[in-house]
Amino acid sequence: MAPQLDAYFKSVDDLSSNFVERLSQAVAIPSISAEDERRPDVVKMGHFLKKQLEDLGAHMEARELGQQPHKEHLTLPPAIIGRYPAKKDESKRTVLVYGHYDVQPANLSDGWNTEPFKLTVDEQGRMYGRGSTDDKGPVLGWVNAIEAHQKAGVEFPVNLLMCFEGMEEYGSEGLDDFIIQECKPGKFFEDADVCCISDNYWLGTKKPCLTYGLRGCSYYSIEISGPGQDLHSGVYGGTAHEPMTDLVRVMASLVDEEGNILIPGIKELVAPVTEEEKEVYKNIDFTMDNLYESLGSKTGLFESKERTLMGRWRFPSLSLHGVEGAFSAPGAKTVIPAKVTGKFSIRTVPNMEPADVDELVFKYVNDVFAKLKTKNKLNVSLQHAGKWWVASPNHPNFTAAAKAVERVWGVKPDLTREGGSIPVTLTFEQATGKNVLLLPMGSSTDAAHSINEKLDKRNYIEGTKLLGSYLHYIAEEPMDQ
Amino acid sequence: MAPQLDAYFKSVDDLSSNFVERLSQAVAIPSISAEDERRPDVVKMGHFLKKQLEDLGAHMEARELGQQPHKEHLTLPPAIIGRYPAKKDESKRTVLVYGHYDVQPANLSDGWNTEPFKLTVDEQGRMYGRGSTDDKGPVLGWVNAIEAHQKAGVEFPVNLLMCFEGMEEYGSEGLDDFIIQECKPGKFFEDADVCCISDNYWLGTKKPCLTYGLRGCSYYSIEISGPGQDLHSGVYGGTAHEPMTDLVRVMASLVDEEGNILIPGIKELVAPVTEEEKEVYKNIDFTMDNLYESLGSKTGLFESKERTLMGRWRFPSLSLHGVEGAFSAPGAKTVIPAKVTGKFSIRTVPNMEPADVDELVFKYVNDVFAKLKTKNKLNVSLQHAGKWWVASPNHPNFTAAAKAVERVWGVKPDLTREGGSIPVTLTFEQATGKNVLLLPMGSSTDAAHSINEKLDKRNYIEGTKLLGSYLHYIAEEPMDQ
Repeated sequence: MAPQLDAYFKSVDDLSSNFVERLSQAVAIPSISAEDERRPDVVKMGHFLKKQLEDLGAHMEARELGQQPHKEHLTLPPAIIGRYPAKKDESKRTVLVYGHYDVQPANLSDGWNTEPFKLTVDEQGRMYGRGSTDDKGPVLGWVNAIEAHQKAGVEFPVNLLMCFEGMEEYGSEGLDDFIIQECKPGKFFEDADVCCISDNYWLGTKKPCLTYGLRGCSYYSIEISGPGQDLHSGVYGGTAHEPMTDLVRVMASLVDEEGNILIPGIKELVAPVTEEEKEVYKNIDFTMDNLYESLGSKTGLFESKERTLMGRWRFPSLSLHGVEGAFSAPGAKTVIPAKVTGKFSIRTVPNMEPADVDELVFKYVNDVFAKLKTKNKLNVSLQHAGKWWVASPNHPNFTAAAKAVERVWGVKPDLTREGGSIPVTLTFEQATGKNVLLLPMGSSTDAAHSINEKLDKRNYIEGTKLLGSYLHYIAEEPMDQ
Repeated sequence: MAPQLDAYFKSVDDLSSNFVERLSQAVAIPSISAEDERRPDVVKMGHFLKKQLEDLGAHMEARELGQQPHKEHLTLPPAIIGRYPAKKDESKRTVLVYGHYDVQPANLSDGWNTEPFKLTVDEQGRMYGRGSTDDKGPVLGWVNAIEAHQKAGVEFPVNLLMCFEGMEEYGSEGLDDFIIQECKPGKFFEDADVCCISDNYWLGTKKPCLTYGLRGCSYYSIEISGPGQDLHSGVYGGTAHEPMTDLVRVMASLVDEEGNILIPGIKELVAPVTEEEKEVYKNIDFTMDNLYESLGSKTGLFESKERTLMGRWRFPSLSLHGVEGAFSAPGAKTVIPAKVTGKFSIRTVPNMEPADVDELVFKYVNDVFAKLKTKNKLNVSLQHAGKWWVASPNHPNFTAAAKAVERVWGVKPDLTREGGSIPVTLTFEQATGKNVLLLPMGSSTDAAHSINEKLDKRNYIEGTKLLGSYLHYIAEEPMDQ
């Protein structure tokens, strides 16, 4: 019979203002993993999270992950792991949940309407702040669920294992080995029955979804250098090879204006689309207007919903992120930059093996550069790579989640894939050998990684109910697999 | 007969440590004209200069130039103008000198070995600091010359008119109209007999030169925008037109890796090279090693000295300076920038009319963009333009300067042109109707506009002697022109 959840739901509603305050405290800590000087804030955020859960009686540990690869002077932020209840109840299933407490960079000067590290709630209940939806809101959703059960006097339905990291926005440095170790017999995560990750978004703004696939991401740097120092373009323009001239030519050779990747061999690595697959896309609740609303423009590459969704989930894409070392400030500076580094990444899909992609990228970039016959130097390198992931949406883990969604939101969720990469998903699947579910809290207009990132208060509060409900449903879902 | 200069020279040597201290005080003021928030420092620098000259008995005025075009909230820094002696001596010639007290942007993080705004002198007498050679050293050279005459009890040979501006590194905004006005009958600069500007560099590191030509500079912005805000490349990569993808394609179409400008019609605007002209280049004291030393690399476009000098003085060049709005920090950020602005400039030569160049640039960029068939928006615009200039090196103004160089440095100067642009040169020539001389103080390795900008102490002290000597020679040079 269906779980009794009314008391839990009422408790969540009663505590909602505390939950918003908890998120506000978390957003106030600028835990930017990509900026070296913010590392102490990332660590501070980890300990804030640990304290919150300890205050609720959970057993928590901050596990050191060593020094950061390629930046040996930097200590990685700890993995914050825990168990609730602190002592395992052998009669209950064990659910391993994951989230991350680090965030993307953000500056008011980037164009934010509000201070990025001050949670600002508008009259429509939109809660603006870096990390609000990616991923502090969902992480605190688990904390809120525990607190709401306690206040409601409702028994917690499962053993909850928690794994929260502080390097997700920088390639989850150091986490894979840790997870693999802790999933072995006798270790912290050994007894997980299923895994759940809340770190993605609804397709649109109305209908919840469960996600069973992710694209991978391989992030590259193209460094081109020549002169010993930046030069005055008046004095040296027309006499020396200019690194920027070479860099834009190389970057322009990677992808065309229609989004086609121009690197030979990449297309051939992609698994063919099946007829059955095409059917699935037709029924997804998504419209081109959903895309235009979240884009904030009508600059979509395709006219059809199906092709757009495939462009996001099913095919690889290549984005040029920017140039380091060139003149990037407002105004006019007549400089010839001596060393410039172009940054781009490729979103990967089945069956693209990251190592194969690297090989094709390195060969192509070196070939294009060689054709330029410039005297400048090239150094192309991989910054980090995360592999794509696809799971079975028919597993009881998904069935239980679907029931929880229907109970909280009153609708059956869409089964979707995601364009973004959460490499750790694949790691959990392989290390635990169990099914991994992606259960999103936020919606498509949350602007993760952008200016004015937000989480709607409704998604945060109902999302907290959803996470708790899912634990009740998975506790009793038949599972012979 | 030759002027008596020994007492003046001794006085300069005796005061040399004071002169270095004066430069140190000037460098300490970060008078960056391209950065709005530094505007108060630019104004502070102007008043520092005014005070130095007033203390030496000069009549000085700070003339307001109004608000900054396109940035009406910003007041332009004043033109600091003056006359020494304060009361005109009708028996002497009047020399109008120009310099600028603003500097290029600079941050330690750009790669400086020392604090850019702290003058740091090494054991070889290299004085490092932003503005040391461009153009605070030369400007203070005039101040030093006045002081040295006073301390030596040597009569000042001419009436010196001074015009020092604070916007040279940002297109000399507002100065042209001011100069044109002040050169009219009854105005401040009406009685100038000749003009002298010390704001460029020797070709190499050993031999002084006199400069009779400059390239112009037309600086452009290519703004490409699409989405309403920055996007997550995982979520939107493969579904939307990306501004960076379009921008690198447009930038790559402007110039090739050998420095050839790809904009149709530009080459046709350039005056043909004459045989007589080719001879001049052969005799210039310059070697490819001079280029390589100042480049800090061997990444020159050409193998011959003549072709290299023509690339610098005689032909146009196009440099890509950078991209505003994209990811420019170290590390990895998976962002699709919503609006990016590519910056580039073209160095112009006779007979390229800036208006014609604009027309060719705008048409070409719009055509290339149109061919992309992207849904993003393009806005290409001119940030600022300064026209090229070529004077007669046979004028007594140059003859007098050549004698001064020979007296101070013991060698005949090369007659050179410059790749950089000092638009005000042309303005002075047209407004006064008199000959304009460019008399450089620094050398080719000074790294103006780059990190680790410096001025050799020897160039600063001997250069101060040179500026003073020039005034003595021009005072008595026969001038029937």
